Amino acid sequence: MNHKIWKKTTIRIREEKFIQQSALAGAGLMLLNPLDILAQNNPSKNMSKNIKSRGYAGKDENGKLESWSFERRAVGDNDILIEIKYSGICHSDIHTIKGHWGKQAYPQVPGHEIAGIVTAVGKNVTKFKVGDKAGVGCMVDSCMKCESCKNGEEHHCETTGMIGTYGAPDKTSPSGITQGGYSNNIVVTEHFAIKIPENIDLKYAAPLLCAGITTYSPMMKINFKKGDKIGVIGIGGLGHLAVKLAVSKGAEVYAFTTSPSKVNDIKSFGAKEVIVVESAEDLKPHKGKLDFMISTVPYAYDMSPYVDCVKKYGYFTQVGQPINGELTINNFNMIFNRVNFNGSLIGGIPETQEVMDYCAENKIYPQIQVIKANEINNAWDKVVNKEARYRYVIDATTF
Amino acid sequence: MNHKIWKKTTIRIREEKFIQQSALAGAGLMLLNPLDILAQNNPSKNMSKNIKSRGYAGKDENGKLESWSFERRAVGDNDILIEIKYSGICHSDIHTIKGHWGKQAYPQVPGHEIAGIVTAVGKNVTKFKVGDKAGVGCMVDSCMKCESCKNGEEHHCETTGMIGTYGAPDKTSPSGITQGGYSNNIVVTEHFAIKIPENIDLKYAAPLLCAGITTYSPMMKINFKKGDKIGVIGIGGLGHLAVKLAVSKGAEVYAFTTSPSKVNDIKSFGAKEVIVVESAEDLKPHKGKLDFMISTVPYAYDMSPYVDCVKKYGYFTQVGQPINGELTINNFNMIFNRVNFNGSLIGGIPETQEVMDYCAENKIYPQIQVIKANEINNAWDKVVNKEARYRYVIDATTF
Repeated sequence: MNHKIWKKTTIRIREEKFIQQSALAGAGLMLLNPLDILAQNNPSKNMSKNIKSRGYAGKDENGKLESWSFERRAVGDNDILIEIKYSGICHSDIHTIKGHWGKQAYPQVPGHEIAGIVTAVGKNVTKFKVGDKAGVGCMVDSCMKCESCKNGEEHHCETTGMIGTYGAPDKTSPSGITQGGYSNNIVVTEHFAIKIPENIDLKYAAPLLCAGITTYSPMMKINFKKGDKIGVIGIGGLGHLAVKLAVSKGAEVYAFTTSPSKVNDIKSFGAKEVIVVESAEDLKPHKGKLDFMISTVPYAYDMSPYVDCVKKYGYFTQVGQPINGELTINNFNMIFNRVNFNGSLIGGIPETQEVMDYCAENKIYPQIQVIKANEINNAWDKVVNKEARYRYVIDATTF
Repeated sequence: MNHKIWKKTTIRIREEKFIQQSALAGAGLMLLNPLDILAQNNPSKNMSKNIKSRGYAGKDENGKLESWSFERRAVGDNDILIEIKYSGICHSDIHTIKGHWGKQAYPQVPGHEIAGIVTAVGKNVTKFKVGDKAGVGCMVDSCMKCESCKNGEEHHCETTGMIGTYGAPDKTSPSGITQGGYSNNIVVTEHFAIKIPENIDLKYAAPLLCAGITTYSPMMKINFKKGDKIGVIGIGGLGHLAVKLAVSKGAEVYAFTTSPSKVNDIKSFGAKEVIVVESAEDLKPHKGKLDFMISTVPYAYDMSPYVDCVKKYGYFTQVGQPINGELTINNFNMIFNRVNFNGSLIGGIPETQEVMDYCAENKIYPQIQVIKANEINNAWDKVVNKEARYRYVIDATTF
């Protein structure tokens, strides 16, 4: 190698590093770690090896998470490796690990609101390059061949079903199941990663990947008009984003909470009215008033007087998933209120990208509290006790 | 009175009697009883008096009916008096008297599938004349002033609510509550009576007034196209009429029953396929196949695998009312199946008239078993045990 060529190469490497570091600095992030540099400079070597991970895992149904070192699959040709920077805490994590939704395999690392930086890419990857911001939501695979998958509704895959980000049987995973985002990295097929725009902080991006899309998708489906009245029940991680998204799209938002201490916050999110519900009586003034209602309540609750708040022939969507999924519906109410009840599951990859881009562009950020890994168990208790304000996001450098 | 005038009067009376008797004979009915003749010839005298009635009443929640003599209000200016000829037995009668849907006042005469002959009319009545066939369904009054009432949705009256045919507090009733159709006559505001066409036998008309309208109304609301696949769950009094109505309107009907002995009957009603359901497994081949489903099941049941049979974004309507109205819905199913669940309550007076006229014109008749009053308790047991084929209709001359 002559001097000239050597110099040119050095400059190219320096430029690449500079571009990377600038981007990262702009997002308030640290430098790539040595593993990332290795991945970038020597992908073939790295690709063949399982990826070492550190995270917090549930070991059984008692629901206490512990630090755990494990391995992820090597980065395949269609995969990217993401160094996780932030990971949101969703009530689903708690339900799953505690076995509320069915028997689980352990150890299991929860977390499906994952935001980080791409540190390696497989040879077929076109959507991402090293240094990009990337996110992972609630699924990491599906058949990609059925009509639903082809239509961007991978969460409704008709053959294998969607493969959840954690706890799903996964032959490619050294632990036998998919392992989620309460960890320092993740390997994922590029299709199931979401591009996170430069202009949104990763810690705000993370909660959009479940709380955001789960509330955005059903609200977009009803094609509401500006000024339509939308009710949001349960103003936690999902609910507070539902309020912000609906307000941003022009709805008149009625927020229903059981926490008087949240009222001022919720008003600041743009809600027209906050209804503190102590009993069904508090709902009566709103009977038949709303065009649409979304409930994020993740436990069985007295649903009927809420459903009654929707106008006849309107829709009520339950996105919160109670223990075993079971909700009691009173058909006496249903025959009189004439409301359509339905459920909604997250959203497909294109729509998740859409809500990510929409929030970045319109500066719709979740209200978060950043915590360290060793605060997760405490945070879980607070989530259950309705003390989160409004989404806990784990700083993944603390794993 | 001279001879000529006397003769003329006699002829007029004879003509009237002849017209009446012809109409009644055409419908296979007996002559009016003496009370009817009195009502016709001396309305003012009759109008001021309470009407004596005989019927079968529940005396408490044990649900055994006994013969009971009681009084109805005098025939008011807007009322008609109907001599009941036939009265259908609906599962709702059983639920109500047994207190499954809430505390009741007793004695209470159930019955809201009432068909008979008008034997007296108040002075303001224009819709009926003495001798007309008339029916009464599930309601006998409402405010008639609110938007719903004005729009022919009296069952959704926004002020007083609809006044049920039996068991509703009623100041005009000598017994303090409305008393239903398991009896020999009824007094009702003309608006809440249905005109029964001459060309339908009263015993076939009776079940249309609840079973018919309850299934017809939600099926008409979905505007199904010819060839659309409609599922009917529970092939009893309501379900068998749902099958016949849907077939008549061009649907491809899938009937779900737990009674293998009903299969041939149901095929004769026109169903494309009859599915005998022993377990949820039997429903799996039909997953996501139907455009619409109506459930007439009047008890809590494992609803989710049925709801799963509907296509995504389709509708599932529950018209059967379980004990206390409570049904368990599994939101895990709902988030994946994307089906809209709703309830439906009978129909308004204009739509009840519509289904009556439609069935008369198209010869859609319920399959009935005519019983005597003293067979009611036995019939109730059979209804509960799914042994009705498919609607018991009481011969009201036996009260």
